[in-house]
Amino acid sequence: LKFVILGGKQMGSIITLTTDFGSKDHYAGAMKGVILSINPRVTIADITHEIPPHDVFKAAFTLRNFYRYYPRRTIHVAIVDPGVGGRRRAIALEADGHIFVGPDNGVFTFIYRESKPSRVHEIRSAKHTLSDISLTFHGRDIFAPVAAHLSLGVSVEDLGKPLRKPKQLPLKEPSLRREEIIGEVIYIDSFGNLVTNIPARLVKPESRIRIGEWIIRGLSTSYSDVPKGKPLAIVGSSGFLELSLNQGRASDVVKVRDGVRVTMRS
Amino acid sequence: LKFVILGGKQMGSIITLTTDFGSKDHYAGAMKGVILSINPRVTIADITHEIPPHDVFKAAFTLRNFYRYYPRRTIHVAIVDPGVGGRRRAIALEADGHIFVGPDNGVFTFIYRESKPSRVHEIRSAKHTLSDISLTFHGRDIFAPVAAHLSLGVSVEDLGKPLRKPKQLPLKEPSLRREEIIGEVIYIDSFGNLVTNIPARLVKPESRIRIGEWIIRGLSTSYSDVPKGKPLAIVGSSGFLELSLNQGRASDVVKVRDGVRVTMRS
Amino acid sequence: LKFVILGGKQMGSIITLTTDFGSKDHYAGAMKGVILSINPRVTIADITHEIPPHDVFKAAFTLRNFYRYYPRRTIHVAIVDPGVGGRRRAIALEADGHIFVGPDNGVFTFIYRESKPSRVHEIRSAKHTLSDISLTFHGRDIFAPVAAHLSLGVSVEDLGKPLRKPKQLPLKEPSLRREEIIGEVIYIDSFGNLVTNIPARLVKPESRIRIGEWIIRGLSTSYSDVPKGKPLAIVGSSGFLELSLNQGRASDVVKVRDGVRVTMRS
Repeated sequence: LKFVILGGKQMGSIITLTTDFGSKDHYAGAMKGVILSINPRVTIADITHEIPPHDVFKAAFTLRNFYRYYPRRTIHVAIVDPGVGGRRRAIALEADGHIFVGPDNGVFTFIYRESKPSRVHEIRSAKHTLSDISLTFHGRDIFAPVAAHLSLGVSVEDLGKPLRKPKQLPLKEPSLRREEIIGEVIYIDSFGNLVTNIPARLVKPESRIRIGEWIIRGLSTSYSDVPKGKPLAIVGSSGFLELSLNQGRASDVVKVRDGVRVTMRS
Repeated sequence: LKFVILGGKQMGSIITLTTDFGSKDHYAGAMKGVILSINPRVTIADITHEIPPHDVFKAAFTLRNFYRYYPRRTIHVAIVDPGVGGRRRAIALEADGHIFVGPDNGVFTFIYRESKPSRVHEIRSAKHTLSDISLTFHGRDIFAPVAAHLSLGVSVEDLGKPLRKPKQLPLKEPSLRREEIIGEVIYIDSFGNLVTNIPARLVKPESRIRIGEWIIRGLSTSYSDVPKGKPLAIVGSSGFLELSLNQGRASDVVKVRDGVRVTMRS
Repeated sequence: LKFVILGGKQMGSIITLTTDFGSKDHYAGAMKGVILSINPRVTIADITHEIPPHDVFKAAFTLRNFYRYYPRRTIHVAIVDPGVGGRRRAIALEADGHIFVGPDNGVFTFIYRESKPSRVHEIRSAKHTLSDISLTFHGRDIFAPVAAHLSLGVSVEDLGKPLRKPKQLPLKEPSLRREEIIGEVIYIDSFGNLVTNIPARLVKPESRIRIGEWIIRGLSTSYSDVPKGKPLAIVGSSGFLELSLNQGRASDVVKVRDGVRVTMRS
C-alpha cells in the first residue's frame, strides 16, 4: 500500500509550464493553485512565463528545446493563446512518451515535425476542467485542471475525440543555392546569441559564415576560442548553428531581430 | 502511522509567496531556505516577486485574484513591507479556510472585504521566528519561519494576541450617476489589459463603455470577436470589466496608468 | 522501511539554482528536467536566473547571502560561466555542511573566504554527467546531472580528484585611514539599496557616513526612521552597511553604479 501511495510521484508526475503570462501578475500562480488542488503531490516546474505576448513560435521553439530533458510521462503545458475563448480548439497529445497540453494554434509544431505524436485529442470533457470557465483565462480554467487530471492517470483519449489535422506553424527551412546554405536567425536568447535554423549536421568545422557585415571563418568549439568581444560561430546547445560574441551580445552588434539572413559556405 | 507521516502534505501544506523582492536578488531564495529548513516537505509556490516596490495595493489585488484557486489550509505569504522594522505590526489570519501571513499594512484588504476573516492575530511569538531578526528583512526572519510553522500545524492563535482593527486600504468603488456607472482602471496586467473596478454583475451585454477617446459598444465574449488591434470590453477572469486590444496592448494606446476613468451606460 | 523511503527527502535533498540564464529562455527549465530525471523527488529552489550575464561577482555575493538559510546537505548550483567549454574547470565542494557545484571561476570566492571548504574536487566523472555534452551549456549537461547525483548520495570525492587552488575573485576590503573607514558600494539590489563592503561590526550607532554628496549622521534602525524619500544608513540583512531612501531608490539619487566610495567616521 505504501508503494501505491508514493507511486504517483515515482511514476513521474511532473507538470511543466511554458506561457506568456509574465511574472508580474497572478496568472501563473493561479494555474499552480488549480493544479495543486487536484493533485497536491505533483511537481510543478516553471519553464518560463516570459514568452513574448502572443508569440506562438517562440513558445513552440522553447518547448522543443527542453521537453526531452524531462522524464517520460511528464506533462508539458504550453500556453500562448491569443485566440482564447474564440474558435481555436484546446488539445492534448502524446508524443515521444511525453504528454502536451495547450491550444491548437501551432504551439506544438516542432513536436509534430520531430516526434510523430501517437494521438492528438480535443479537450471537450467538462469533467476535467473547472466548472466556471472564464472568457479569457483558459490556462487556469481548462489547461491547468486537465494537466492535473492527466498527472493522476487520466488518459488523453478520455478528454475528447481525436483531432485529425492539428494546426502547424510554417517553419522556414534553410535552402541550398549553389554551394551556399542560406538560413536565418530564428531565435535570440537572453545572452544575445543568434540561433539560426541551420542544423548541426549541415555545419562543418571549416564553414565560412556570413551574417550582416560579419564574415566568420571556421567554427569555434567554445566562446573563449576568440578574444573577448569578438564574433564566433558555434554549434549551440539546441542543435543549431549559433552566432555569438565572446562575453558580449551578438544581437547588439548585428542589430537585427529574428529573420536576418545567414549564409554558410563549406 | 504511514498516513500520519504523509498527512502533512495531503492536508495541504502549501505556502505561496507574493512579494516585491524582485527576481534578481537572493531575497526570495533566502525565504525559501528558511521555510524548507523548518518544513522540508512543504510545497512552495512562487506567485510573483515582481510586485512594484512598496505597492501594497497591487499585492492586495494579486492575492485576491489567486488565493481561492489553492486548496484550503494553504498558507499565503504576502510581503510588500515599506514599514519593515518600524511600528507596523506583523499578522497572521484565517479567512475562507485559508491562512494569510504578512505585515499589517492593508495587504489583506480584499480578504477582509470579501471573506470575513474568523481571526486576525499579531505575530509576537519569538518561538516561531528566527532568533536573529534583521532590521530590514522580516520576510526571511519572521514571515517565512512563521509560515513554515503554520504549515506544520501551529495555529494562528499560538502566534500572539488577537488584533481588533487590522489596517485596510481605502478601495475605490464605482459610483452611479444618472444612468451611468463611473469606475476606474485599478490594475494593468502584463498584456496591457486595463482591469477596472466595475464588477461583472453590473456589466450588461449591450453596455456602452467610454474610456479616454474610446467608445466601445457592447461586450465581447472573446478577444477575437474584434479585428486584430481593435479595442474591446470583456468580463475578465478576475470578475471585473476589462478593456483590451485583440492581440495588442490597450495600455499603450490609452496611454494611461492606474486611475483613469471608465464610464459605462446600459 | 517507510523511513528509508522518505529518508531521501528528509535528509535534505534540496537543490538551489543561481544562474545568469535569464527567465525568458528554456535554459533553467532544461536543467530542472535533467535534475528531475535523475532524482524525481528532489526539491528544486530557484534562487535567481537573473544574475547579469557573465557577472561572476554578483553570483558569488548572492550565493553568500542565501545559502546559510538552507538546511545542511543542500546542494547549491551556481552558474555564471563565460568560460564554458574552454579551459576553466568544473568543480564541486563541501563547506559549512553544504555542497556547491559550478565552474571554477571564482563564483565560490565568499565560500572559500568565510567557510573554509573541507574539500574541493574537479568534476571529471563521465558517469555523473549526460552522455552528450554540448559546447555551450554545461549547466544542463554537467552541473545539473552532477547536482542530482549528489542529491542521491554520491560524494564530492566520487567526481574527480581534489583541486588545490580553486580560483578566487579579488575582494575589495574596506581600508582604514586615520579615523575614517573607506569602503565602497559592492551591490545594488532591486529596491535601489546600496550595499557596501563595510561589515556590521565596524558600524557604530553614531557613525557619520559620506557617499557622493550625501552626509548621513547616525545609523537608522528602520527605513521609517526618516521621512519618506530621505536617505538613511542601516545595517542591512546581509550584515553590511547599506544606504537607502525611505520608500525610494537610493541608486537613482546617488546615480552611481557599483564601486562608488563610501566613507565612515565614528
